[in-house]
Amino acid sequence: MIKAGIVGGTGYTGVELLRLLAAHPDVEIAAITSRGEAGTPVARMFPSLRGRVDVAFSDPAQTDLTACQCVFFATPNGVAMGQARPLVDAGVKVIDLSADFRLKDIATWERWYKMKHAVPDLVAQAVYGLPEINREMIRGARLIANPGCYATAVQLALLPLVETDLVDRGHLVADAKSGVSGAGRKAEVDILFAEAGDNFKAYALGGHRHHPEIVQGLKGASGRDVGLTFVPHLVPMIRGILATVYARVTKEADFQQLFEKRYAGEPFVDVLPPGTQPETRWVRGSNHCRIAVHRPMGGDTLVVLAVEDNLVKGAAGQAVQNMNLAFGFPETRGLDQVALLP
Amino acid sequence: MIKAGIVGGTGYTGVELLRLLAAHPDVEIAAITSRGEAGTPVARMFPSLRGRVDVAFSDPAQTDLTACQCVFFATPNGVAMGQARPLVDAGVKVIDLSADFRLKDIATWERWYKMKHAVPDLVAQAVYGLPEINREMIRGARLIANPGCYATAVQLALLPLVETDLVDRGHLVADAKSGVSGAGRKAEVDILFAEAGDNFKAYALGGHRHHPEIVQGLKGASGRDVGLTFVPHLVPMIRGILATVYARVTKEADFQQLFEKRYAGEPFVDVLPPGTQPETRWVRGSNHCRIAVHRPMGGDTLVVLAVEDNLVKGAAGQAVQNMNLAFGFPETRGLDQVALLP
Amino acid sequence: MIKAGIVGGTGYTGVELLRLLAAHPDVEIAAITSRGEAGTPVARMFPSLRGRVDVAFSDPAQTDLTACQCVFFATPNGVAMGQARPLVDAGVKVIDLSADFRLKDIATWERWYKMKHAVPDLVAQAVYGLPEINREMIRGARLIANPGCYATAVQLALLPLVETDLVDRGHLVADAKSGVSGAGRKAEVDILFAEAGDNFKAYALGGHRHHPEIVQGLKGASGRDVGLTFVPHLVPMIRGILATVYARVTKEADFQQLFEKRYAGEPFVDVLPPGTQPETRWVRGSNHCRIAVHRPMGGDTLVVLAVEDNLVKGAAGQAVQNMNLAFGFPETRGLDQVALLP
Amino acid sequence: MIKAGIVGGTGYTGVELLRLLAAHPDVEIAAITSRGEAGTPVARMFPSLRGRVDVAFSDPAQTDLTACQCVFFATPNGVAMGQARPLVDAGVKVIDLSADFRLKDIATWERWYKMKHAVPDLVAQAVYGLPEINREMIRGARLIANPGCYATAVQLALLPLVETDLVDRGHLVADAKSGVSGAGRKAEVDILFAEAGDNFKAYALGGHRHHPEIVQGLKGASGRDVGLTFVPHLVPMIRGILATVYARVTKEADFQQLFEKRYAGEPFVDVLPPGTQPETRWVRGSNHCRIAVHRPMGGDTLVVLAVEDNLVKGAAGQAVQNMNLAFGFPETRGLDQVALLP
Repeated sequence: MIKAGIVGGTGYTGVELLRLLAAHPDVEIAAITSRGEAGTPVARMFPSLRGRVDVAFSDPAQTDLTACQCVFFATPNGVAMGQARPLVDAGVKVIDLSADFRLKDIATWERWYKMKHAVPDLVAQAVYGLPEINREMIRGARLIANPGCYATAVQLALLPLVETDLVDRGHLVADAKSGVSGAGRKAEVDILFAEAGDNFKAYALGGHRHHPEIVQGLKGASGRDVGLTFVPHLVPMIRGILATVYARVTKEADFQQLFEKRYAGEPFVDVLPPGTQPETRWVRGSNHCRIAVHRPMGGDTLVVLAVEDNLVKGAAGQAVQNMNLAFGFPETRGLDQVALLP
Repeated sequence: MIKAGIVGGTGYTGVELLRLLAAHPDVEIAAITSRGEAGTPVARMFPSLRGRVDVAFSDPAQTDLTACQCVFFATPNGVAMGQARPLVDAGVKVIDLSADFRLKDIATWERWYKMKHAVPDLVAQAVYGLPEINREMIRGARLIANPGCYATAVQLALLPLVETDLVDRGHLVADAKSGVSGAGRKAEVDILFAEAGDNFKAYALGGHRHHPEIVQGLKGASGRDVGLTFVPHLVPMIRGILATVYARVTKEADFQQLFEKRYAGEPFVDVLPPGTQPETRWVRGSNHCRIAVHRPMGGDTLVVLAVEDNLVKGAAGQAVQNMNLAFGFPETRGLDQVALLP
Repeated sequence: MIKAGIVGGTGYTGVELLRLLAAHPDVEIAAITSRGEAGTPVARMFPSLRGRVDVAFSDPAQTDLTACQCVFFATPNGVAMGQARPLVDAGVKVIDLSADFRLKDIATWERWYKMKHAVPDLVAQAVYGLPEINREMIRGARLIANPGCYATAVQLALLPLVETDLVDRGHLVADAKSGVSGAGRKAEVDILFAEAGDNFKAYALGGHRHHPEIVQGLKGASGRDVGLTFVPHLVPMIRGILATVYARVTKEADFQQLFEKRYAGEPFVDVLPPGTQPETRWVRGSNHCRIAVHRPMGGDTLVVLAVEDNLVKGAAGQAVQNMNLAFGFPETRGLDQVALLP
Repeated sequence: MIKAGIVGGTGYTGVELLRLLAAHPDVEIAAITSRGEAGTPVARMFPSLRGRVDVAFSDPAQTDLTACQCVFFATPNGVAMGQARPLVDAGVKVIDLSADFRLKDIATWERWYKMKHAVPDLVAQAVYGLPEINREMIRGARLIANPGCYATAVQLALLPLVETDLVDRGHLVADAKSGVSGAGRKAEVDILFAEAGDNFKAYALGGHRHHPEIVQGLKGASGRDVGLTFVPHLVPMIRGILATVYARVTKEADFQQLFEKRYAGEPFVDVLPPGTQPETRWVRGSNHCRIAVHRPMGGDTLVVLAVEDNLVKGAAGQAVQNMNLAFGFPETRGLDQVALLP
């Protein structure tokens, strides 16, 4: 049994962490901080947790997180980098769900996130928490950069392809679609129900922050440069991401088998039978990424479809998976929720 | 052809007014003001209007609204009362879509709206713009208080009943349900897609501002006190109100006929055939209120169902209807949109 | 560990039962029958279950359900009554999620369900499976009639009131709203996305089958006649019911306390603090019914709000709760899912 | 004033035609046929039309459509080809909203639509009703094949590109997303609210019937072979299509200007200013297709975004536009509806 702390638990990744940790047999939620909500019982803000989580938000200034063995940051970008060092130094394992430690290249990070990075040396230590690439490093990590939601789905859809030389790695296309919870629990007009409901649009055509993260991962896996066009879209649903990925085949292979072999033994990546057309609700509330490989009309373009719940495998669930690895718990512990369908 | 001005056109009632006025043959949109958006073409903020409305928002301080014959206020409560007098004095007809002139009793208004009323004498002059009650007064009005969305639906559902002594007027129940656009285009967390979507709740159990407005109208029509329990609910849809109204029958009558007679000749109130169960989409985008009268299982409780589009008959459409009356145009002019179904 | 069978598992209550039973430590899913889908792995039809449920649908004619200790019927009305007797005779505990055994009065049942009842004597033996009323009888039951979804919410909202003489029991109003999954997984036009989406309506004004069920329960609890007007509505959401119940107070009391006392110790009924306005998503995927008691503007009308997930406390979850009671398992076993929010 | 008939008006394209024709000053709706609904007033099935359309469905066998000058087929595929000849021979202009006359190659049509074509010679006469390509031919046409919804959006997004040699025409990708009304008003499980709501998926990976239609159009415009990967997706919204089209640039050009020039003067194609990210609601209920041209991060992949209302420009609106052309009415007549936003 470990004590876990959460910094900034008033957003969607925060409440999702609470949902998952409340069901984890080896974790006690010891503290959850929020400047604005200090004193409020968590279950008053999120009554879905009534009877299951009875901690209250505490003032960050008065909360000693070094009494925890594991601390999750569910904060806006820029917060974790300012608070991680004393925790890491105290031997607390830190899992950051924000983007502060995701990009190894500091200059790139600063350009995309429009701030100066506070602790470049910690970035070097941080392990990128995609278990399907970095499982062994995660086991020993002290600081884990939990991947972005799009970045998880798109990388899992492309990894088997970029690790080989079967497709044109210079011209990949990822047309990704996300539910609105991906934008967070922020008071902004363009994610109001009356704006985002019964509506569909692409966004971030000028560039999305997950782009450099995906490219970094694919380059790492590929060992060479990768060219990617990434266009995210906003779907009038709450949870879920579908990434539709297009790659031009340059060398023939059994792509279904390629994916099945690559992910054999992965507890949370499910390569679907040929011909399957995955739906986001197949993973609603679960930590799975389900992937299908298609070759429309036998042409030379491969289409890979990957679905995940952006708040689970795309955020809080993957964070718990990383915690399990880092603490030597069984990787799937506390993550056996069956998807909620319908 | 008259010149119309709109004060505060960046919300949903503003863009809906523009949609309707753009199709009105006797109106030229002469000015639309917004402090925050001065200089922005309206169609840049609302691209649905591209090619149809080519005015830009103008700075209120630099806009002479007395050059208009009609000015609509689509502003938050408290704005119109501060600006109406010079317009009224200049002979401009003012139609206020906010609540500033709806309640005749100033003390009641101040209690519910939590501010001091700036121009009590203008309240006395204002005509409550529900044509089904006040048509003749609206024709001569200089200042029109456009009714609230719930208030329109609930009053139309109850008017024929409270004008007679056939039901227990002391214990009426209005269980009303509204789409999320009724909450306005405001950056607030609880109307985010990820909060209001796939969800349903009642709200304002402690009291809703349309309650005194409805009661004032029903008392006026009834000539006696009226007791009403009013509970609004938030529906995960964009537009539409359904009011389900319950009244205990105290004297038998042909209630279907009562409603049909009351609303015979009304261009925008449609009493449906017996047994009909109206849907909000039957009026999506149109200025109609459709009403059905039921007597479940022959019991002593009458159930009246009324649907309207909260942004049309519940706001901008009714404002145009009032403008038509006030200027002597045919009452239905510019309001012949067929509801959008599906 | 018991073996459980499910008859007719291709609908929403079927897949929800599978989700819950897959997480129940004392249950093995031994058989699930479907005439039309015999041979199909359950997880092919519902890929949300991939990796968790690996049975296939079997042909009812070739499935020996007497090898199970517990059989659930998740079938259309009229099926369970034709198949229950041999199971009951063989000592199998039967839990019927359809309406076949809910109404004690056979003539009433036949009038509402428009068929002849096959086994009136079994109806007499059946226990109505609302644990908050019949817990002790359920423990010893051989045949359990699992309550309807509306019937559960409305009864729980009204029980504390009808058990006392504090309100006018002759004129209760239940204005209930349900997500579309309540209509089942049937190919019907009026529950298509393009019909039910972005739309709201009342239905069954001529009478709903849950009306006699609710009245039977309330009369039983009250010991006297009860008058109820019940109007269901269709909400554009997938899961969830909110019942808004109106009762006229005839004798003053502390109603908040009345509810808290009545449901003290109930594991799945949560009386909310005064002033709370419950939302259906607070119970999405969980077996809780959360209830709030209001007295709008201090008037003489009491308003009780009750939310539940129609597929869980309103169907499959309550069935599992009944199974737990009937087999002597802890009542909450397998039912500890935290609601999915957002 | 012409008399128009509609064959098969009980689906979504039928009711949308009625909405548009009811507002058209030069058209009288003379007949609307439906075998199943003969005798039912149209406004009883679609109460949105109450007070605006007072015809009833008539029995096809007893309806003389040759009394009309224009007949629309809003029928399932395979019906129009069986009934068109006598109408064409009688000089009635026929506009088919189904797919019967869209593909010039009969063998291709028969392979995709899995039936024998009844009137290949009429296919040769039919004009493909995309005014942006075939305006002049439509003016003189006696039989018009109204384009498919996806086919309209994708062709409009690609036309300026394939007419030139600036991109790799052999490897185009169209990732298209449609609201659920595109699947029609059919009782099918997978388009139920509880299936398609809060969910997202790709479909028709094995091939979609609009693929050969799009390819035929692009080849015609290009004068050479075109390679296209087309993947449609189902969005949980009612109306609207967004096509996200990817093309690799092979020769530099000012693509924004290319599109603006190509569509200059087109009344219903709106090339948006650089940087715009169109939303489907910008055209909800209107006949416009709005297009934006992007070059993400300055790479060699061009991304074109096109939005339309699948029931208007993608079906009934385009049919009315074609009718206007064929009868010499102003092209925009009856098509001036402003999009409904929000």
